[in-house]
Amino acid sequence: MTEERKPKRVEPRVPRGMRDILPQKMILREYVIGVIRQVFEEFGFEPLQTPAIELRETLMGKYGPDAERLIYEAGHSGGKEELALRYDLSVPLCRVLAQYPELIKPFKRYQIAPVWRAERPQKGRYREFYQCDADTVGSASMLADAETLALTYEILSRLGFRGFVMYLNDRKLLNGIGQYAGVSGEQLPGLYRSIDKLPKIGLEKVEEELRRNLIPENAIRRMMELLQIEGTSQEILARLRVVLAGYPAAMEGLAEVAEILGYLEALGIPERFYQFSPAMVRGLEYYTGPVFETIVEEPKIGSLTGGGRFDKLVGMFIERSLPATGTTIGIERIIDVMEELKMFPPEVGRTVTQVLVTRFSPELIDESLRLTDALRKAGLRAELYFEDEPLARQIRYADRRGIPYVAVLGPDEAAAGKVSLRNLALQQQVTVAREDVAAQILAWRQG
Amino acid sequence: MTEERKPKRVEPRVPRGMRDILPQKMILREYVIGVIRQVFEEFGFEPLQTPAIELRETLMGKYGPDAERLIYEAGHSGGKEELALRYDLSVPLCRVLAQYPELIKPFKRYQIAPVWRAERPQKGRYREFYQCDADTVGSASMLADAETLALTYEILSRLGFRGFVMYLNDRKLLNGIGQYAGVSGEQLPGLYRSIDKLPKIGLEKVEEELRRNLIPENAIRRMMELLQIEGTSQEILARLRVVLAGYPAAMEGLAEVAEILGYLEALGIPERFYQFSPAMVRGLEYYTGPVFETIVEEPKIGSLTGGGRFDKLVGMFIERSLPATGTTIGIERIIDVMEELKMFPPEVGRTVTQVLVTRFSPELIDESLRLTDALRKAGLRAELYFEDEPLARQIRYADRRGIPYVAVLGPDEAAAGKVSLRNLALQQQVTVAREDVAAQILAWRQG
Repeated sequence: MTEERKPKRVEPRVPRGMRDILPQKMILREYVIGVIRQVFEEFGFEPLQTPAIELRETLMGKYGPDAERLIYEAGHSGGKEELALRYDLSVPLCRVLAQYPELIKPFKRYQIAPVWRAERPQKGRYREFYQCDADTVGSASMLADAETLALTYEILSRLGFRGFVMYLNDRKLLNGIGQYAGVSGEQLPGLYRSIDKLPKIGLEKVEEELRRNLIPENAIRRMMELLQIEGTSQEILARLRVVLAGYPAAMEGLAEVAEILGYLEALGIPERFYQFSPAMVRGLEYYTGPVFETIVEEPKIGSLTGGGRFDKLVGMFIERSLPATGTTIGIERIIDVMEELKMFPPEVGRTVTQVLVTRFSPELIDESLRLTDALRKAGLRAELYFEDEPLARQIRYADRRGIPYVAVLGPDEAAAGKVSLRNLALQQQVTVAREDVAAQILAWRQG
Repeated sequence: MTEERKPKRVEPRVPRGMRDILPQKMILREYVIGVIRQVFEEFGFEPLQTPAIELRETLMGKYGPDAERLIYEAGHSGGKEELALRYDLSVPLCRVLAQYPELIKPFKRYQIAPVWRAERPQKGRYREFYQCDADTVGSASMLADAETLALTYEILSRLGFRGFVMYLNDRKLLNGIGQYAGVSGEQLPGLYRSIDKLPKIGLEKVEEELRRNLIPENAIRRMMELLQIEGTSQEILARLRVVLAGYPAAMEGLAEVAEILGYLEALGIPERFYQFSPAMVRGLEYYTGPVFETIVEEPKIGSLTGGGRFDKLVGMFIERSLPATGTTIGIERIIDVMEELKMFPPEVGRTVTQVLVTRFSPELIDESLRLTDALRKAGLRAELYFEDEPLARQIRYADRRGIPYVAVLGPDEAAAGKVSLRNLALQQQVTVAREDVAAQILAWRQG
């Protein structure tokens, strides 16, 4: 860098609503993503990557006007296309299905990637966050929806969650309830948005909002009666089947729910983990059939996953649509919650490094280098100390970093072909033959 | 979606220079990334995540004017900050080090993430591509540089590369050679850019370019003489030590190179894998010491990794800089090359799914569901066929997808507690007890 062009020093910071994830948190994050990816693949979902930058026209008209105001634009000098950063992973997925008709159906894919939304920043909410989606495109079978719930159950269980409920509903049923109550088709999207707020703002405020949106009073009454039926999934199902017998859309929705419930039972998922809930909506406009949402009740931490069937979304790109269903796993929230509740297994440490190899005098550096290399070849994650500093300082570095083991190779050890090994947690030190270092560490690790 | 707001159907496509990576290629990609991440962690590098969107001022003035023209801008309605998409991972790393002074040094991090550059699209080159960086910040020790090369060697070896050379040079030496030849300090960056083109455009054209840039004829001659010295690393080192004895910058560079070469030897990395090369520059302006580049010579596929020391980059954010060194592993190119040369191990298949569980009649769906679940619990990646279709069609699906094993559960099998298993590659079928399905598949997998 020549002197003339030296730019002024700028304050190191990130844009509003953005954040860095430093190594200690990243290690937790990678653990969660690793578990989720593994379950996705066990279920036969395959990885897909789409670009962060999409054509603006690909995204617009899919999410509703409130959402679309939050979409980031992108561009470069001389660029002629209108570009935008992806807002979710579902619309790019549908674009992919439309663009590559040769893809074998059903197409089961997962994608774990950032999306961007210019929402008002607040605690725990960022403008760049990861979505973690598994979707099945090209199957109208309720088996695909049931598997989506089974996948959700498996992921949350494997991460250590015990007190969660996967709520299940159906947009066809909601349409049918709208008909039953006498709400017109154009009013339905607004109706969904209002009902969606039920758990947050309560019955009264939702009713007020419905009145403001000119939903007739008796329609509100008829609807709210149905949405508030309580009982087991089967009891609610039985009751609605009687009330809504004359409404084909509603009955279709109920049949879908019943079929999914049957599969969950066959899979032996305990009933306390799922619940048919006619008032659960999911905000997004594009859902067409079953919708899902998982809420952790104990402790009360809210929604961790959400999804549903979106049979018409591919049809926004090509004439013949494809049935599709899937879920988002809310990893940002999951990571926060698991950290707060200390749910990470003990082997997920503060650092990836398992052993620090110290250095003694300049003549012995080569020995330390070779030992580091040998430990890595034995499958250990080993770091070599770079600076020519006193041993105490090197050990203190390991301690501050959370590196559990330290290997010391001084002149005595070098002459004898040995290594002194310290276990910082146990405050133990042993001297072992150089070829036994890895075995000693493994023994310590296994307690 | 109500009828009124139905948007016009848009053509499904990605912006110029962007691409989707479909599952078959993603599986190869994930394999490569998995190997690299594992080696990074074995060397004690830890994961870091920075946002894709940075403040524009964070990026500008770091890469040189030609590069900075390629930076993407980003924005959102009502946004007041000037935003840009990251151009590489090094500048964000330096911002992080400046922003969080509490980070323990040396700070060894890796990051595997996309970057965006609006370059002219061409075959194999995209405007969004992944970088895969490992850097050590806070150590001036040549051990950190040597470990960077050892890391590169380990990654390329483990991926199956055999005929590569890691070229090593030093910017201090280049500065010294400039002084020796009589080139002024301001002319050095331009000089680097010209010499950098030597392997691509050849000696004559580089000399022409230098002349156009007003480098004196005798300076060109003196410089080119040195840059073209051939021999082993030690021979070149010895020769330059004699010629450049009076130039302290050059001698410092040579001492750094000698130290690194010594460590590589101590590590037992065969000499054919590395070479001191005084003409190797690396284009980026911010390098200050050792620079590295790996070229695969057999077959001739060019540069796969590149890096070096950038001791002044953190100093563009805070007053006191921090020494830093590291490398980029060019995973996009590595993946392309490995695919072309069929270097992937046989266990990396066309699909993640190992076994397809077929379905028979509606009454038997629950049995198929339970078998799928049991196989997953046994650690297999299992997919359930969703559609009520003839068995032949289900098996054909497995075949088209590349799923190696198919489980059939008809009424006979269900009654007997058995499962018929097909190995599509071997064209074999066996009938086993339901609890032995996973074991049979494992036996097949192990050949």
